[in-house]
Amino acid sequence: MIPMANVAVVAEPPIGEFAAASVSDGTAGRAPELERSIHRVFIKSILRGTEDFLGRRVVVGGWVKTGREQGKGSFAFLELNDGSCLANLQVIVEAAVHPLTQLIPTGTCVLVEGVLKKPPEGAKQSVELSVDKVLEVGVVDAAKYPLPKTKLTLEFLRDFVHFRARTNTISAVARIRDELAYATHTFFRENGFRYVHTPIITTSDCEGAGEMFQVTTLFSDAEKTEQELKKNPPPSESEIEAAKFLVKEKGERVSILKQSKASKEEVTAAVSELTKAKETVTRLEERFNMIGGIARKDGKIDYARDFFGRQAFLTVSGQLQVETYACALGNVYTFGPTFRAEHSHTSRHLAEFWMVEPEIAFANLEDDMNYAESYVKFLCQWLLDHCLEDMEFMVKFIDKEAIERLKLVSSKPFERISYTKAIGILENVKDKKFENKVEWGVDLASEHERYLTETVFKKPVIVYNYPKGIKAFYMKLNDDGKTVAAMDVLVPRVGELIGGSQREERLDVLIRRILEAGLPLEPYEWYLDLRRFGTVKHSGFGLGFERMILFATGIDNIRDVIPFPRFPGRADL
Amino acid sequence: MIPMANVAVVAEPPIGEFAAASVSDGTAGRAPELERSIHRVFIKSILRGTEDFLGRRVVVGGWVKTGREQGKGSFAFLELNDGSCLANLQVIVEAAVHPLTQLIPTGTCVLVEGVLKKPPEGAKQSVELSVDKVLEVGVVDAAKYPLPKTKLTLEFLRDFVHFRARTNTISAVARIRDELAYATHTFFRENGFRYVHTPIITTSDCEGAGEMFQVTTLFSDAEKTEQELKKNPPPSESEIEAAKFLVKEKGERVSILKQSKASKEEVTAAVSELTKAKETVTRLEERFNMIGGIARKDGKIDYARDFFGRQAFLTVSGQLQVETYACALGNVYTFGPTFRAEHSHTSRHLAEFWMVEPEIAFANLEDDMNYAESYVKFLCQWLLDHCLEDMEFMVKFIDKEAIERLKLVSSKPFERISYTKAIGILENVKDKKFENKVEWGVDLASEHERYLTETVFKKPVIVYNYPKGIKAFYMKLNDDGKTVAAMDVLVPRVGELIGGSQREERLDVLIRRILEAGLPLEPYEWYLDLRRFGTVKHSGFGLGFERMILFATGIDNIRDVIPFPRFPGRADL
Repeated sequence: MIPMANVAVVAEPPIGEFAAASVSDGTAGRAPELERSIHRVFIKSILRGTEDFLGRRVVVGGWVKTGREQGKGSFAFLELNDGSCLANLQVIVEAAVHPLTQLIPTGTCVLVEGVLKKPPEGAKQSVELSVDKVLEVGVVDAAKYPLPKTKLTLEFLRDFVHFRARTNTISAVARIRDELAYATHTFFRENGFRYVHTPIITTSDCEGAGEMFQVTTLFSDAEKTEQELKKNPPPSESEIEAAKFLVKEKGERVSILKQSKASKEEVTAAVSELTKAKETVTRLEERFNMIGGIARKDGKIDYARDFFGRQAFLTVSGQLQVETYACALGNVYTFGPTFRAEHSHTSRHLAEFWMVEPEIAFANLEDDMNYAESYVKFLCQWLLDHCLEDMEFMVKFIDKEAIERLKLVSSKPFERISYTKAIGILENVKDKKFENKVEWGVDLASEHERYLTETVFKKPVIVYNYPKGIKAFYMKLNDDGKTVAAMDVLVPRVGELIGGSQREERLDVLIRRILEAGLPLEPYEWYLDLRRFGTVKHSGFGLGFERMILFATGIDNIRDVIPFPRFPGRADL
Repeated sequence: MIPMANVAVVAEPPIGEFAAASVSDGTAGRAPELERSIHRVFIKSILRGTEDFLGRRVVVGGWVKTGREQGKGSFAFLELNDGSCLANLQVIVEAAVHPLTQLIPTGTCVLVEGVLKKPPEGAKQSVELSVDKVLEVGVVDAAKYPLPKTKLTLEFLRDFVHFRARTNTISAVARIRDELAYATHTFFRENGFRYVHTPIITTSDCEGAGEMFQVTTLFSDAEKTEQELKKNPPPSESEIEAAKFLVKEKGERVSILKQSKASKEEVTAAVSELTKAKETVTRLEERFNMIGGIARKDGKIDYARDFFGRQAFLTVSGQLQVETYACALGNVYTFGPTFRAEHSHTSRHLAEFWMVEPEIAFANLEDDMNYAESYVKFLCQWLLDHCLEDMEFMVKFIDKEAIERLKLVSSKPFERISYTKAIGILENVKDKKFENKVEWGVDLASEHERYLTETVFKKPVIVYNYPKGIKAFYMKLNDDGKTVAAMDVLVPRVGELIGGSQREERLDVLIRRILEAGLPLEPYEWYLDLRRFGTVKHSGFGLGFERMILFATGIDNIRDVIPFPRFPGRADL
């Protein structure tokens, strides 16, 4: 789809696609004393609609990719990029219009007005802008700009997350990411799914495992409290005893007054003194029990004093919560950030990443696989249909097979094999020595997954019915008593892209599985309730959104496919 | 749009709309030993496509809203809801098909197969399902089910967030929320915006104000460490001195060996001893400095030991970060969760809520207003076009003006007045006594905002150019030196729905404003960099997503328009 607004042609009525612009020009309500709105045309619109634009006057804004003076300083060529697409617009400015040296440094921002012209015969570009007004300039001191014109590594760019979207690779990734997000919403919408915002702060732990970040307000006053405690030292045990004794005394006095039918005022006054004495004890005990400014109870951190009155964490998955909506709305999905506090420094792990998690009522494992396969195919086809220029860039500079891979996945049916069969295949592999053991009951390692999808089947593979010992408690136990109705989608280059399962809908089996996993039942009572009242066969899966981008682009490091990567020791901005 | 998949007609080929189903039936790759997929038809599809369905055999799944036995127990009517729409499907089951008492309790889940028939003349419904197979039942013990058939208050339902989506109101809200989310993505996409995932965990504080949640892993080992320190008491100061002395000795030995040109082996061994001695000091000092199991440095919590090597928080806004992408891609937006650790117990505040924040390069305040107005209009029109059944429910049970309000907002141009003018109007109000002072320089209270939009103008109002003293440092200073280019969109019932501004793009002014706000420059260096290198006029705004749902539905309490509300003392699930 072509961007249709923030687009107008100066001094002439909008043409062609812009007639459909959905943003009002504000004329109905405009405030006369304000600067008139800046209407600029996206470079993408110009380059895709060249014929309509030739000869027209437009305003264009963007950042200079490269600039050079020509004709002995009489004019300059600027390659201008505005992020709407990968390609630049060639802009020509004469020296009489604006001092050229100010315009040509890489990174300079300009807003210019001019006429779109056909370039001379033989030129590479199909259109160029001949500028007669330079409306705004955001200058760059080339000596200080952190992103010089030379080729920069992705690793180097990670130290400049606030600038790196100005590079070709990172801006192309941003557009691909945006397209995949919209494709996700579109796919699920077309299939009758509703988007549910599951909580980020949670008091449930999805699998009873996994390192979680804690969310707290206990620290924010701790240092202040500690300073104050240094000035006013905390009470001694004997002070607390004395205060408690006072409570006892005041309590007895109230009893005596009540028994002796004293006046209402006398009783009220005595009760008020008792209340004050009790408050004093509470305050003293709190101060006595603080360690490092943080409240304690029975030797442990007193989370009753934290914001939510209990320990709270950042979610590791929205699955359990979204199941409550699947058991009401039928087909639902969540798409949001998830967190792992693992000290992983690999190219595949982030502390904060985005997950897509559909959950489907009245669905068994085969339904789950059908949705997973259709969803991945839909994403791949979407990029081919909507993002080809950026994908061609990936082929040229990152991974020459990127487009071929999308075509393969979007067109070929996925192979579906049981875990048991997969183990059988891997045990008989002669041409390769695996680092990790292949044995029934042990999880597949990444090398096994990639061997299956890249070497054996040369297309995506869904492996299903895994041993129960290596999977989570909520997965449906199969009739064999040994396996669960889980499935993983494996794709070339990345390995596991999706993990999913049919959920255990039988109350008795689920309780048994929770206990077998060594987990307490109490935190899962609400989850068990879904099985107690109107239980339903249901299934779901999770797709790691950044994994999908790695798969699509061929980029190596997950830190380069999320705008602001978070990992141990690092959370810039 | 009609949901098109998870839909098939049993034993007959798909018809009509279902031909477009985008989910494969998996036949190409299906695993023969698995249970065949469950194809069910959405009730929404049946009710909207009645003519096509009459006489056809289908599978339908859902939860019983009400069930009753008829004809002396010979058959039962079930009002079945599957969440795909508000309306129920009437289902008839004969006693010979299944024990009726198991089917009729409210909340029972059934998957049934049968034929869709035209009901008798005069019936309310246009179609009913005559069931001949009950495929699955998820039973309910009516005596224990927490949601009886009686009318329940929204407040009561807040104690059952895992079930409340099964009620008419909360499921309608969920569908409206889903529609508004998709409308948001669609609006921005159509206008050339790219979706950017700004970070949830941040080391920046957006406005140098606002209570933030802290994200940490320091607690997770604290209790364990503390236990361990009780068994092995921390070192005394003299022990540390002794260890430091050892480092000095070992260091001198290394120097001597090097000077005397000792053998390589001797030097290596000495260096290794020195390293060990240094590690011992570090370990002892760490243990010495711990308080309550948490590492300290110079009397403060040592955040260098936390996961990110520094203090980290949950974001209060993605604005500052998304500006980095606006200054590269042009038109961008973020749509994600944001957090406030404020102890507010009002019906308008949540600790976790969703915000939509567009940021637009080459845009001044008027552009900002134009986008804001167009976006709100688009959302309102979208609900009228896509969600009328649920909106009619709101009119009937929640707020009789809900649809009128959407029509008003989507059709009338918003009023635009300066803050100064707004104050002038409010100062001259005779018919109402405000609780809060009206005075130039003081922020508008909710009562003032609602008076302007509801009483004075009777339509949405955009107030712009606020006194700089009541707005954030990043807002562009106007030429008068007294006001900033800020704007708020006020709407009936809710008051402020959107807050936005043109951003200060001038480096020198921005630095001055940060310092005037009493903030340090260092944390904002990256933000200042955007003005140092290729600065651009840009603007943006934020819309509180839950506020928009309150506005659309007329629901009173914000806790009822988010699936899993978080507020002080409460974070269920």
